[in-house]
Amino acid sequence: MTDATRILLDENEIPTHWYNVIADLPSPPAPPLGPDGKPATPEQMGAIFPGAILEQEMSAERWIAIPEEVREIYKLWRPAPLVRAVRLERALGTPAKIFFKYEGVSPAGSHKPNSAVPQAYYNRQAGIKRLTTETGAGQWGSSIAFAGQMFGLEVRVYMVKVSYHQKPYRRLMMQTWGAEVFASPSEMTQTGREALARDPDNQGSLGLAISEAVEEAAGRADTNYTLGSVLNHVVLHQSIIGLEARKQFDRIGLYPDVIFAPCGGGSSFGGIAFPFLADKAAGDRRARNLRCVAVEPTSCPTLTKGQYAYDFGDASGFTPMMKMYTLGHDFMPPGIHAGGLRYHGDSPLVSQLCHEGLIEAVAVPQLATFEAGVLFARNEGIIPAPEACHAIRATIDEALRCKESGEPKTLLFNLTGHGHFDMSSYDRYFSGELENYDYPAEAVARSLAHLPKVG
Amino acid sequence: MTDATRILLDENEIPTHWYNVIADLPSPPAPPLGPDGKPATPEQMGAIFPGAILEQEMSAERWIAIPEEVREIYKLWRPAPLVRAVRLERALGTPAKIFFKYEGVSPAGSHKPNSAVPQAYYNRQAGIKRLTTETGAGQWGSSIAFAGQMFGLEVRVYMVKVSYHQKPYRRLMMQTWGAEVFASPSEMTQTGREALARDPDNQGSLGLAISEAVEEAAGRADTNYTLGSVLNHVVLHQSIIGLEARKQFDRIGLYPDVIFAPCGGGSSFGGIAFPFLADKAAGDRRARNLRCVAVEPTSCPTLTKGQYAYDFGDASGFTPMMKMYTLGHDFMPPGIHAGGLRYHGDSPLVSQLCHEGLIEAVAVPQLATFEAGVLFARNEGIIPAPEACHAIRATIDEALRCKESGEPKTLLFNLTGHGHFDMSSYDRYFSGELENYDYPAEAVARSLAHLPKVG
Repeated sequence: MTDATRILLDENEIPTHWYNVIADLPSPPAPPLGPDGKPATPEQMGAIFPGAILEQEMSAERWIAIPEEVREIYKLWRPAPLVRAVRLERALGTPAKIFFKYEGVSPAGSHKPNSAVPQAYYNRQAGIKRLTTETGAGQWGSSIAFAGQMFGLEVRVYMVKVSYHQKPYRRLMMQTWGAEVFASPSEMTQTGREALARDPDNQGSLGLAISEAVEEAAGRADTNYTLGSVLNHVVLHQSIIGLEARKQFDRIGLYPDVIFAPCGGGSSFGGIAFPFLADKAAGDRRARNLRCVAVEPTSCPTLTKGQYAYDFGDASGFTPMMKMYTLGHDFMPPGIHAGGLRYHGDSPLVSQLCHEGLIEAVAVPQLATFEAGVLFARNEGIIPAPEACHAIRATIDEALRCKESGEPKTLLFNLTGHGHFDMSSYDRYFSGELENYDYPAEAVARSLAHLPKVG
Repeated sequence: MTDATRILLDENEIPTHWYNVIADLPSPPAPPLGPDGKPATPEQMGAIFPGAILEQEMSAERWIAIPEEVREIYKLWRPAPLVRAVRLERALGTPAKIFFKYEGVSPAGSHKPNSAVPQAYYNRQAGIKRLTTETGAGQWGSSIAFAGQMFGLEVRVYMVKVSYHQKPYRRLMMQTWGAEVFASPSEMTQTGREALARDPDNQGSLGLAISEAVEEAAGRADTNYTLGSVLNHVVLHQSIIGLEARKQFDRIGLYPDVIFAPCGGGSSFGGIAFPFLADKAAGDRRARNLRCVAVEPTSCPTLTKGQYAYDFGDASGFTPMMKMYTLGHDFMPPGIHAGGLRYHGDSPLVSQLCHEGLIEAVAVPQLATFEAGVLFARNEGIIPAPEACHAIRATIDEALRCKESGEPKTLLFNLTGHGHFDMSSYDRYFSGELENYDYPAEAVARSLAHLPKVG
């Protein structure tokens, strides 16, 4: 059985519970803080999130049941395959075994629906009729469009205007699933109208789009807001990735030595890594030397160059403050950076584990990630999303170290999505328009100087 | 087990042999004819095809072994899932059980690699170093780019110039897999140079691109040509679809009453339907009332409005003549038609079975196909390619007839590919730019008047 290329599970093997890493943290997580510097209350967040989501956000229960209705929708594409990259191993001449968990099989083409589906479900349970969200390139927007449609919810997506016009295909995907998509800034909200009054040609930003989506959700009782990464409940939902992978490794009698995942807001990394950290916490001998490596771009090096401190979740400072690795909430990655993974901060859970030394982080330069993605595509067929190329790069580097040392390690990475809607980034790579960019230390210091003062 | 949403097979259940319907035809197939009106000889085609492919093109063996190296590559995505569309059934309120075989899981996103992979393999076995082909929207070109890369062959794709510029993403997909892609007409061939001399702004046509690809293959000993549909060996390779589906139905103790597939050149229809016709030929009681329905667009109604006669395979009359349903080799579908399925003829095998009444054909109008595709996406998640929407339309129509009659039929359709590279067609649909178009009888009569005289 270890010779299998793809390790598949039957749909009745979809996990029945998500895993909550908070139960196994060495110390309790630092609470989010409100504008007054005091811990934010559930009431403060109740205007935009349903109770069940808030409960999950705060819960310290190790296992949280997945509703049957959510598992029914998961069955449209889950369990996702665990695949051994035999041809890539051969191309590298490495004694390492390389496995990837392929999340690109979801309708939206990435791991994002793993959380979009339960978020839509809990909102419908709470009597909510409409969801709002913001989207840049459209990964999260398309996932919530799909998930909303599955539960009969209206979905409104505020899409950064420049992406709305430059990347019409993700927008069309959302519309195919019945969502309304507005170019942000829009005429739909006070925030949008004011921005347009100041500058009718405003091309939008993620911060502005967040503000529009939150304003609409906060102002209407039948409408809630959804977020695709960073928060605890999102990382919780994504644990389905690692839980399935654990079963699949059991099936073939192997266990990973090193796990790699791209890391922007942290949900794809936490999703695949945390269930294996549970084994480590439980004293499982196989996990004793397990390493979990979050891979980020050198152009947005949150975990490797940021500061572990309280900061706002958004650029405008509307959200509660969270304790996390941050480059400063007004940090902006350079235009030369082609993929996602642009968030100034990181999941508080991923940040805490990194700060406590239980996980590692590494930053990789842009050109090396595309080089890795192309090598992967030419051996394994699948064309990976630029975000996933970060994990592939780090995995290949480890496999090459194994080649030098002769160690037959078992490596696992999270292939978070396919690149079908990112071919313009490959175009920029092939035509030599992309460059490496190490975010300069003085620029990081400048944005870190604006961290909010706490306590 | 009949409650399962997705019926998966293990990779060691990938069929070991392809099924050749020629062995079960009631009468032998009419041979292709050379320019002199006499049966074309293998020698005439040997300049552009390897011997193993020519053998398969002519063979009457029922079962032809799939080389182990081909099965190894198939394992990158096969066996493809058979999926029960439970949510679509509920939305329609039909007593019918609706199943689809999902071929969009291949790296290139369609069923085309099922034949591209063995074609690349047999060419490499024959010592060929380079493959050429033509492509319009890029489905076949990207499949052969992927397959060539798997066997270390250079691939050159002549892409119709207007598509080259309007659909850059499929081109980038081919380049990611290492293929060279030229806008046709190009400076690479005599044909291309002459076309450009006559008109430097020539935007190209599929006929011109075929001529360029064939010219290069015919002129170089190390180079062969590949074709993605119509020919017997392509239909043979595609039988993997129906063979897997048969095993999957066995697994759940069901058998289809009606099978639907889109039909352009015929390979996706033959691929899913012919292995079930084998059961019928063998007297299997379950297959006694089986209906197989080829679904084509009303704008290119080859099987429903064409003539069963000898005609050229290409617009220019370079290829041997084949006995098939045809609208005339100089037939051109209207620009208003958004999807594929634009071929003037059809697979001689599909044509013969249709002529002998063993299969059926139906033509569906464009707007109804997109309407069906959107309904499917909003229930099952997957956004289908426009070609696949034709089969979905016909399946939904049958399911609605079942609703009226109360018959709980088991329906199967071939979901030949996803629509990730076809979102511009959805855009045209949503924005009201598309129309229905029934090809007028007098226009068909006009192009049929140009059929070659035979015998």
